[in-house]
Amino acid sequence: MPQGKPEQVPDDGLTTRQRRRQPVLAVHTGTGKGKSTAAFGMALRAWNAGWPIAVFQFVKSEKWRVGEEAAFRALGEVHDAKGIGAPVTWHKMGEGWSWIQREGTERDHAAEAAEGWAQVKRDLAVERYRFYVLDEFTYPIKWGWVDVSDVVGTLRERPGNQHVVITGRDAAPELIGAADLVTEMGKVKHPMDAGRKGQQGIEW
Amino acid sequence: MPQGKPEQVPDDGLTTRQRRRQPVLAVHTGTGKGKSTAAFGMALRAWNAGWPIAVFQFVKSEKWRVGEEAAFRALGEVHDAKGIGAPVTWHKMGEGWSWIQREGTERDHAAEAAEGWAQVKRDLAVERYRFYVLDEFTYPIKWGWVDVSDVVGTLRERPGNQHVVITGRDAAPELIGAADLVTEMGKVKHPMDAGRKGQQGIEW
Repeated sequence: MPQGKPEQVPDDGLTTRQRRRQPVLAVHTGTGKGKSTAAFGMALRAWNAGWPIAVFQFVKSEKWRVGEEAAFRALGEVHDAKGIGAPVTWHKMGEGWSWIQREGTERDHAAEAAEGWAQVKRDLAVERYRFYVLDEFTYPIKWGWVDVSDVVGTLRERPGNQHVVITGRDAAPELIGAADLVTEMGKVKHPMDAGRKGQQGIEW
Repeated sequence: MPQGKPEQVPDDGLTTRQRRRQPVLAVHTGTGKGKSTAAFGMALRAWNAGWPIAVFQFVKSEKWRVGEEAAFRALGEVHDAKGIGAPVTWHKMGEGWSWIQREGTERDHAAEAAEGWAQVKRDLAVERYRFYVLDEFTYPIKWGWVDVSDVVGTLRERPGNQHVVITGRDAAPELIGAADLVTEMGKVKHPMDAGRKGQQGIEW
């Protein structure tokens, strides 16, 4: 159990209070479970702190995160109805992003990922939200669909006090270099190793 | 991104469907962030699946998990009002457990942890909930306040389809041996290393 004591105090001229309020860039990477689930767990705290939340799901699957999405939509409605917590906005690449109207079903994943990142940049620039989950965002970076130096530069320069959590395997070294908090989720044991398939309530 | 294909199919006489519905014991351990936050992220899925949730917080702190607790209490109220999601029960050792009436403020932590575990056993025996978060439960085991063989035996023998997630550093080898899913959260970088203290919305 952490004691809340910093291991060293930096010579940056900031008070503890100023340093405490710095915006956080967190990266959850590694091959184990819990990268995204921990990001959504952090978002629960953000909700309670009253910080507007945006989730950008950079993943193509009908089934993924449906549990988290339903729960956060319910929390967003609690905010709208009772004024407690925070508003929640949920964007899914799998449906072609909610802000884009599009014909047909054939889509280019690389272009969609780039559109998603372009929207994140616009939102960061105007400080639209306070807490961002960029779920599975390491993959479009890894695949070269989004330029890592653009990502790192944008995040380093982001205005105000906007917290960002990025999840996914194989986080780029540049991203890890820019992050304040990096956790590597290591797989020790997984039910799929023992021949089980995923089940509702556990995997989605 | 996992493809949902088991790496091997066990010769256990079960169909994929039966195997899929097996109850899961998950352990989140390691020195990094995200052990408890990932457990609460899993609980969001359980909520959406309609599984009654119980959280047992084996930790003595006013401040810890207040964000998660507020969000899950709100989700529990959504269930009670609208019949969607699942009911949520939240027990805190820090307040002497909600089911125990007690005089005075002097309490014995070891006895309290044992009382918490005794309640978990009673609830498992009657299948009171479907999804249990035993938050920071590795510590009372490590400190000998709760007997690890009792824990492992109880969990192995638990009836029905009850999922249990245990969090905390230094999970006992016996516990890891009994678990279906173990994730080691490794610390790569933490803001406290750079002299920052915790802040609301991020740490609690």
